[in-house]
Amino acid sequence: MKFNIALLAGDGIGPEVIEQAVKVSDAVAKKFGHEITWKPALTGAAAIDAVGEPYPDETHDVCTSSDAVLFGAIGHPRFDNDPSAKVRPEQGLLKMRKKLGLFANVRPTFTFPSLIDKSPLKKERIEGTDLVFLRELTGGIYFGDKGRRDGGETAFDNCEYTRDEVKRLAKKGFELAMTRSKKLCCVDKANVLETSRLWRETVQAMEKDYPEVTVSYEFVDAVAMRLVQWPNSYDVLITENLFGDILTDEASVISGSMGLMPSASMGADIALFEPIHGSYPQATGKNIANPMATVLSAAMMFEMAFNLPDEGKAIRDAVNKALAEGIVTEDLADGGPSYGTKEVGDWLAANI
Amino acid sequence: MKFNIALLAGDGIGPEVIEQAVKVSDAVAKKFGHEITWKPALTGAAAIDAVGEPYPDETHDVCTSSDAVLFGAIGHPRFDNDPSAKVRPEQGLLKMRKKLGLFANVRPTFTFPSLIDKSPLKKERIEGTDLVFLRELTGGIYFGDKGRRDGGETAFDNCEYTRDEVKRLAKKGFELAMTRSKKLCCVDKANVLETSRLWRETVQAMEKDYPEVTVSYEFVDAVAMRLVQWPNSYDVLITENLFGDILTDEASVISGSMGLMPSASMGADIALFEPIHGSYPQATGKNIANPMATVLSAAMMFEMAFNLPDEGKAIRDAVNKALAEGIVTEDLADGGPSYGTKEVGDWLAANI
Ligand SMILES: CC(C)[C@H](C(=O)O)[C@@H](O)C(=O)O
Ligand SMILES: CC(C)[C@H](C(=O)O)[C@@H](O)C(=O)O
Repeated sequence: MKFNIALLAGDGIGPEVIEQAVKVSDAVAKKFGHEITWKPALTGAAAIDAVGEPYPDETHDVCTSSDAVLFGAIGHPRFDNDPSAKVRPEQGLLKMRKKLGLFANVRPTFTFPSLIDKSPLKKERIEGTDLVFLRELTGGIYFGDKGRRDGGETAFDNCEYTRDEVKRLAKKGFELAMTRSKKLCCVDKANVLETSRLWRETVQAMEKDYPEVTVSYEFVDAVAMRLVQWPNSYDVLITENLFGDILTDEASVISGSMGLMPSASMGADIALFEPIHGSYPQATGKNIANPMATVLSAAMMFEMAFNLPDEGKAIRDAVNKALAEGIVTEDLADGGPSYGTKEVGDWLAANI
Repeated sequence: MKFNIALLAGDGIGPEVIEQAVKVSDAVAKKFGHEITWKPALTGAAAIDAVGEPYPDETHDVCTSSDAVLFGAIGHPRFDNDPSAKVRPEQGLLKMRKKLGLFANVRPTFTFPSLIDKSPLKKERIEGTDLVFLRELTGGIYFGDKGRRDGGETAFDNCEYTRDEVKRLAKKGFELAMTRSKKLCCVDKANVLETSRLWRETVQAMEKDYPEVTVSYEFVDAVAMRLVQWPNSYDVLITENLFGDILTDEASVISGSMGLMPSASMGADIALFEPIHGSYPQATGKNIANPMATVLSAAMMFEMAFNLPDEGKAIRDAVNKALAEGIVTEDLADGGPSYGTKEVGDWLAANI
C-alpha cells in the first residue's frame, strides 16, 4: 500500500523523536512492502518563528491531503509566563484539532512489566492497569466564547456542548468498550454543571443500544481519586475536553511508563498520532529524549489509521524487545547503561 | 469564652461523625473553661425531605448568627443518577457557600507516620508531604450562567472571574505561604483559558508585595501529574473552583489518610469546618464511620475561627494518641481490633 503521512515535528524534542518514528515506520514499510511518502510541515513555535502562525494554512493543506498525521510535540517556555503573548503555540494545536475535526482523543494507560517499579504507586495498586480514556477534543470550554469585560477586570470562558457532540464521542466509547471488557465509565460533574447533565442523559439514552456494556457514572473528582487508588478498576472512560486534559495526564504518570505512552486523535476523515509527553525544552538537541512514545504512536497509526495490525505489532514487539534488553534512554536506564535518542531509534528500526 | 456554633450534620454518616466532634469539642471547652452553645440546623437531603430546600433560610440565619459553622456531609445517592432532579443536596452546599461568602476553601494534605503504609504511593514518594490547597469556592463555573438552548440540545456553563475575586484568594495564599515555607504555586490553564490568564496576571502583579515568597505557575494538568509523582515538592497551592475540586480530591488520597483530613472554608465574616469525606451512604447508621476528620475539623475551628491554638492542639494530640494506641475505626484497623464511631469519639473526649 501507499501512504502519504503528514509529518509535524513541532518544537523542543519533537524533531528528534519524530526522526526515530520515521526511521522505524520506514523499516516497517520496507518489511511489509508499503511505500510511505512523508510530508513535513511546520507547527508550533517553529511555525510562529517562520510564518507568524502556529498552524499555517499550508500545514493544514498538507494534513488534509494526507492519509494520517504524525505529530511530535509543541510548546516553548518563552510563551508560558507571558499572559500577554498574542500568538501561542498551543493555539496552533487547538486550531489544528478543530480544523481537522479531531474530536476523539484516545489515551491508553498501560503498564510494562519491566517498568512497573518506576510507578510512583505501589506494585499491587498499579499491576494489571490497562485503561483507555476517550477525551472529547474539539468542544467544551477550550472552544467556547472567551474574553474580558469591565476594562479587563472580568474574564470569562464559556463551556458548551451539543447532544450530537456528546453522542459521537460516546459512540466511540461504547464501541471501544465492546472490543475490551465491556465496561464504560462516563466521567462528569452532573451534580453541578448543566453540560455534564447533558453528557449523562445522552449516555444514559445510548445504553439500550449496547446492552452488553456495563456503564457507570462517576464525578470527575471521584475519578481523580480512584485513578490513584485503584487504576486497574477502570477500562474505558469517556469524558469532556477539560476533565480529559487533567485526568489523562494524571493517568499517564501512574503507570511509570509515561515516556512510552502514545495517543491518537480521531476525526471523521483523518487521524493524528502523537506521544503524550510535551516538548521537553530542557532536553532539546541533547539526544537524550525517549523516542518510544512517538514510535508507539506510529504503531497506533498503522493499526488505527491504516488498519494494519501486524505492522503495528512489529513495532510493539521491537519496543518490548528493546525494553527487555535494556536498549533505553537514560530516563529508563536506572543508572545502568543508556543509549541516545538516535541510537534507540536505530536499534528499533534494525529490529523490525 | 462563649461560642455559638451552628451544627449542620447533613446526610448519611454526617450526624454520626458530627456527634463525636461535638463530644470532643465539649470536652475541650470544659477543660479550657469555654462555653459552647450548639445550634443544630437542617441541610442537604435531610432539609429537602423536611422543608423542600437543601439550605433553608432558617439554616442560613442560624449560621450568620453563630461564631462558626461545623458541618458533617451531604449528598444522597437517590439524586446522583437523576439528571432531571429539580432540587439537589449539592445545590444547598453551593448556596450556602455563596450566601455565607466562603470564598477560600483550605484543604491540607499531610501524613501520619502510623498511616503512611496506607498510601497507594510508595513510601519514598509520600513521606514528608505537607501541602495546603486554597481553592476558590464561590466563583468560576460553579456559579456562572448555565442552561440549555436549542430545545435542550445544547447545554452551557459559563466560567467567570473578576480580578478582585482572584486577589482576595491569592492574598490568603501569600499570607499562608509566609507562615510556612514561603512557596506558592498558582495552578491554572493560562495556555487556554482567559480566566486563567486573569489569575496568572493578577498573582504576578502581587508578587512584589511578598518579596520573600517564591511563586511558581503550573498548568492544572501538570499539577495533576506532579501530585502523584512528587507531592512533597508542594507547599501552598492556590487555584480556581473547579480545578480545586479535582486536585484537592486527588491530593486527599495520596496520603493514605483521607478519612482523617479536615478542611475549612473561610469568608469575610464567618468560617465553616468540615471533613473532606462525603456522606458515605453505605455506612450510614452502622457505627463504622471514621469520626477523626470531623474531630480534626473541630480542631481547625478552634485554631482558625477562635484563634485558640492550644485547644486545637489538645484535639490533635488526642487523635495522634488514638492512632498510636490503635483506637481506630475499621478502615484503619488493618484487620486488627477496631472500634465503633461512638467509641472512638468517647475515647477522644476522655483523652482531652
Ligand atoms: C497544550 C494544551 C493546549 C493541551 C491541552 O490542554 O489540550 C495539552 O495539555 C494536551 O493535553 O494536549
Ligand atoms: C458536592 C459538590 C458540589 C462539591 C463540589 O464540587 O464543590 C464537592 O465535590 C466538594 O468538593 O465539596
